[in-house]
Amino acid sequence: MLLNEEQIIDWLKKKIKIKSKEIITKIGDDTAVLKWNKDFYFLLTNDIVIDGIHFEKEKISPEKIGRKSLAVNISDIAAMGGIPFYALVSLGLPSAHANFVSGIYKGISKLAKEFNVDIIGGNTSKSPTLFIDIFLTGKVEKNLLKLRSGAKPGDKIYITGSLGGSIQGKHYNFQPRVKEARQIIKKYPVSSMMDVSDGLSSDLTRLAKASNAGFILYLDNIPVSKSAVKVSKTEKEAVFHALNDGEDYEILFTIDKKYSRKVFKKTDSVPISLIGEITTEKKYIGIFKNQKIKITPEGFDHFKNI
Amino acid sequence: MLLNEEQIIDWLKKKIKIKSKEIITKIGDDTAVLKWNKDFYFLLTNDIVIDGIHFEKEKISPEKIGRKSLAVNISDIAAMGGIPFYALVSLGLPSAHANFVSGIYKGISKLAKEFNVDIIGGNTSKSPTLFIDIFLTGKVEKNLLKLRSGAKPGDKIYITGSLGGSIQGKHYNFQPRVKEARQIIKKYPVSSMMDVSDGLSSDLTRLAKASNAGFILYLDNIPVSKSAVKVSKTEKEAVFHALNDGEDYEILFTIDKKYSRKVFKKTDSVPISLIGEITTEKKYIGIFKNQKIKITPEGFDHFKNI
Repeated sequence: MLLNEEQIIDWLKKKIKIKSKEIITKIGDDTAVLKWNKDFYFLLTNDIVIDGIHFEKEKISPEKIGRKSLAVNISDIAAMGGIPFYALVSLGLPSAHANFVSGIYKGISKLAKEFNVDIIGGNTSKSPTLFIDIFLTGKVEKNLLKLRSGAKPGDKIYITGSLGGSIQGKHYNFQPRVKEARQIIKKYPVSSMMDVSDGLSSDLTRLAKASNAGFILYLDNIPVSKSAVKVSKTEKEAVFHALNDGEDYEILFTIDKKYSRKVFKKTDSVPISLIGEITTEKKYIGIFKNQKIKITPEGFDHFKNI
Repeated sequence: MLLNEEQIIDWLKKKIKIKSKEIITKIGDDTAVLKWNKDFYFLLTNDIVIDGIHFEKEKISPEKIGRKSLAVNISDIAAMGGIPFYALVSLGLPSAHANFVSGIYKGISKLAKEFNVDIIGGNTSKSPTLFIDIFLTGKVEKNLLKLRSGAKPGDKIYITGSLGGSIQGKHYNFQPRVKEARQIIKKYPVSSMMDVSDGLSSDLTRLAKASNAGFILYLDNIPVSKSAVKVSKTEKEAVFHALNDGEDYEILFTIDKKYSRKVFKKTDSVPISLIGEITTEKKYIGIFKNQKIKITPEGFDHFKNI
């Protein structure tokens, strides 16, 4: 039997029991949360980028590959309301040309500096396939931690930035939303949060499942990126891209509806859009031009084509 | 210009500066050591196993691959005197057959249970090459922490177990020396410690370099494993295997010579051999049948054949 990524995670959730009482998250969250000291939780996350899957090394500079490998991890920490701090960098290299290796590290280091991330160790190995696997730690004030599981029926659903068409370049250049996520959490009573890495349709379904709820998505309100518009012939096609493309690395979050009038339309640096609501009924519904449609998690599943 | 693993690490050491004062190790150590609380340091390590490099998936069960992927990481924690506790498991899979994935996790879980390691998260992705990259955290009492950099001229050099021929099977089945390393540290004034993963010749050279010293290796005293003897025609060939094969995952350590008479010949579960001494002069010398020979780091370098 062949499994997809979701099935593997579901299987792991059943199979692997976390024993430690210091860990307050479950298998399936992007980031593990560990009790640490009286003010902070310690965050542990990791994310891989692999040649042929997440980038194509013939088509892109080693600097951009390096940058992306760290950015996807910083985004995971941002999604919890956290601040990243230490990274271990694991490198699998088909060959070790000095320029290529230094290019990758240049890309990693530059972004690391920007986000005050310290590279404290790692690992290199020969590998038939080029990959970079980064292990990133972070911290978050106890009162600022957000999980994907906290959404309540009636909560409104929001997203930062715009979605879709990231294959046009954004997936190399996106800015992890550390500052924006923390700004949002400090301003509003956020009930749940996650980053959109596999596509809004997949990730919102995950958020709803983790929160034991459903959702109605206002498809006409989804902020469609210029790149998605550019590659689309119709409005519907553009919305489909925004819904399913993945690798947007924007922040998805929910807030109790009674505060919804108070939510500003942007943080200091990025727009915020109201795109739906959480429902008691565990259905995943979209409304497009007053028509109801069924939302399936069509976002990028790395195993789909197997 | 092509680089080998040692050159990449040397380059990184020069290039990457750790800013945080919470980190007490440098790039190049197997494990990063982080200040934590008044009694303990926090340890962070990671090690990859890759198909075609560290195992061959056609020739070995997924359980053994999984076991090895965690065991190499536990060995890194053991080498610091630490106790492993949390793991994140990153899996790159060419295809996701249920039996294969569950076999890998079975291998990981069984060893995790044995060493009280909690799997708290991770990551799966499609990948052209199968690999498992584990990030393992650990803790060590402040007074028990050992680094590879503490050896002093005159110190005697010791090794647990036996060396060589691990390709015959030991590299899948070895027992990480957590208990033994801690027993040794508690009993004797150990000045430096590391695990032998790439071969005694490579790893002892690293220990000497990190300690700003040289060594004389008593080649006649090296505990040669049965597997190394089996594959060798002469005694010299067997010693060469013990010196250079790698993947032994035994513990290499040094103790002030004035305690050397008191060092027992075994821990509760494994023999200990006296195999050399640290020298002021930064030369790497072996003595075999009263003949001096030059030791070069011939241990396994993953980039050597590129």
